[in-house]
Amino acid sequence: MAQLSMEEARALAERALRKAGAREAMAASTAQALVRAEAQGLASHGLTRVPQYATHLRNGRADGLAVAVVARQKGAALLIDAKHGLAFPACDLAIGNAIATARTLGVCFVGITNSHHCGVLVDHLRAVTDAGMIGLGFANSPSAMPAAGGKHPIFGTNPVAAAFPRRNNAPLMIDLSLSEVARGKVMVAAKEGKPIPLGWALDRDGNPTTDAKAALEGSMLPLGAVSSPKGSMLALMVELLVTAVIGAQFGFEASSFFVDEGNVPRLGQAFLVIDPGALAGSDAYYDRIEILIAEMLSDEGVRLAGARRTGLERRADESGLTIPDALKNQLDMLAA
Amino acid sequence: MAQLSMEEARALAERALRKAGAREAMAASTAQALVRAEAQGLASHGLTRVPQYATHLRNGRADGLAVAVVARQKGAALLIDAKHGLAFPACDLAIGNAIATARTLGVCFVGITNSHHCGVLVDHLRAVTDAGMIGLGFANSPSAMPAAGGKHPIFGTNPVAAAFPRRNNAPLMIDLSLSEVARGKVMVAAKEGKPIPLGWALDRDGNPTTDAKAALEGSMLPLGAVSSPKGSMLALMVELLVTAVIGAQFGFEASSFFVDEGNVPRLGQAFLVIDPGALAGSDAYYDRIEILIAEMLSDEGVRLAGARRTGLERRADESGLTIPDALKNQLDMLAA
Repeated sequence: MAQLSMEEARALAERALRKAGAREAMAASTAQALVRAEAQGLASHGLTRVPQYATHLRNGRADGLAVAVVARQKGAALLIDAKHGLAFPACDLAIGNAIATARTLGVCFVGITNSHHCGVLVDHLRAVTDAGMIGLGFANSPSAMPAAGGKHPIFGTNPVAAAFPRRNNAPLMIDLSLSEVARGKVMVAAKEGKPIPLGWALDRDGNPTTDAKAALEGSMLPLGAVSSPKGSMLALMVELLVTAVIGAQFGFEASSFFVDEGNVPRLGQAFLVIDPGALAGSDAYYDRIEILIAEMLSDEGVRLAGARRTGLERRADESGLTIPDALKNQLDMLAA
Repeated sequence: MAQLSMEEARALAERALRKAGAREAMAASTAQALVRAEAQGLASHGLTRVPQYATHLRNGRADGLAVAVVARQKGAALLIDAKHGLAFPACDLAIGNAIATARTLGVCFVGITNSHHCGVLVDHLRAVTDAGMIGLGFANSPSAMPAAGGKHPIFGTNPVAAAFPRRNNAPLMIDLSLSEVARGKVMVAAKEGKPIPLGWALDRDGNPTTDAKAALEGSMLPLGAVSSPKGSMLALMVELLVTAVIGAQFGFEASSFFVDEGNVPRLGQAFLVIDPGALAGSDAYYDRIEILIAEMLSDEGVRLAGARRTGLERRADESGLTIPDALKNQLDMLAA
């Protein structure tokens, strides 16, 4: 394993993205987000994405020279065009404008069209909680899950995120994809030759399967799919919010991020920013969230959303990151 | 079983609520909503609620003379105070104002505080889709589910709803509570002496149970709880959105709706209304949603969200409602 300080990791990722064709601000924003994910223990959204994004920058699936713009604003509704660039600078622009709008209009809904993979969705909401506001996030992704009753993937795992500021503590951070489990869990089972529970996945013919290898060729199932269509209904809701409503492409129209060749994904993200000062009032909000959290923690065994990630990130800030040698070598080559 | 036309059922429910002390507009709005739920086959949110609401109106858990007001508006953020009345007139006021605000500002987030049970959440969004807009809805309810890792109920089953208009078809209507299954399914199993699957519920000590009777004394589990804390994270997100952010009471602070005596629930609802005309543009929106729906329906076995309810409602409009004799007698007595 290789050791890097946070700053070394950031600089290395930034250089690799620059070499692949990302303009300075895009490389900087993207590198910072990926290092932050790595620091939180979210390796699947961390530095392993640098080679993937670099490939997309090189083969035209993402435009390294794109400059995201405010395409439209009507009151508290805002549309950002990522112009087929990496998603991070477009998300920065969206969130910055949404906070400013919510400050005057109490709330802002911002959509980002022509976008790419947005990494850890909830991390985009950090600036929102820093501003004392509440944020929700939605995103689609290349198709991986069937509609209710269906046999073939149509929706992405379509994450939902929420962030709630606290007065004297790290914000409450919620971030989840709408599949029953992450694909990574199926990959681990396949590697170990172990079966998976019913309700995790379908095989390529759309039949429920306990065979991890068959599952990898099929679809992931939505949250709670063994009992009801609720998870797929939520995935449909997210899909429409970030596509038809704002102009981005459906998950079934986008090629997987994990193949090198493929189309420009043109996916969508959307954020809702709410100023509690315009509703309950900020003092009331901060008082009340602590009452709920105290009640939650009075039940032994309850852990707060995002607490584990926050702890890992604090440790990484002090002691740096540890990544596989192979990944370190790959990054060094890309940055050279 | 007793047969009633829709109009007879509406008038009967309205009279019963009036007799219990609801002012005219509150009784009318509530009766219409409950009959609509009954017509859609949602008996648990239909006419059986009339006796429950009547009891609450009589014992002060709901104020029949309350007149909901706009308590605050800042730009696109709107706060309605239901003044401890039944929820329906407050929801009507909220949605009417939210549509008007979204027409000028593109979007509106409206919270309703000091509220009561809001019935079928998605039905409040019908006026939104009639106006060519998209609506989301959130609500909390008396505590029924534990936080992630917890043993005791803290969150309600906290429903999420979404409604998306279509050009020449009934809107797509999504409405789901965040429990793995409805409590009604556990009650049926308990009655039949059958076990329930693991992942549906905990017993009163917070242990996973397959005993339906033990489950009824414990907590319902959130969506997908057998695999992950995702469902309880969503319930936490909804809980905070409709309480701390807008000033309403937490689910754990409200007495159950199913006990006669108890406190004034002071629960919360929130709606987000988005005008696609301010983002992708209405034509683009209507074109794109049809493309997604066509792709969904190309997968044999997929049924659209809300289609079953819409079909049942249409039939009820033509042939009326059938309700148990006992319920009919109860309504007649309340209305006499």
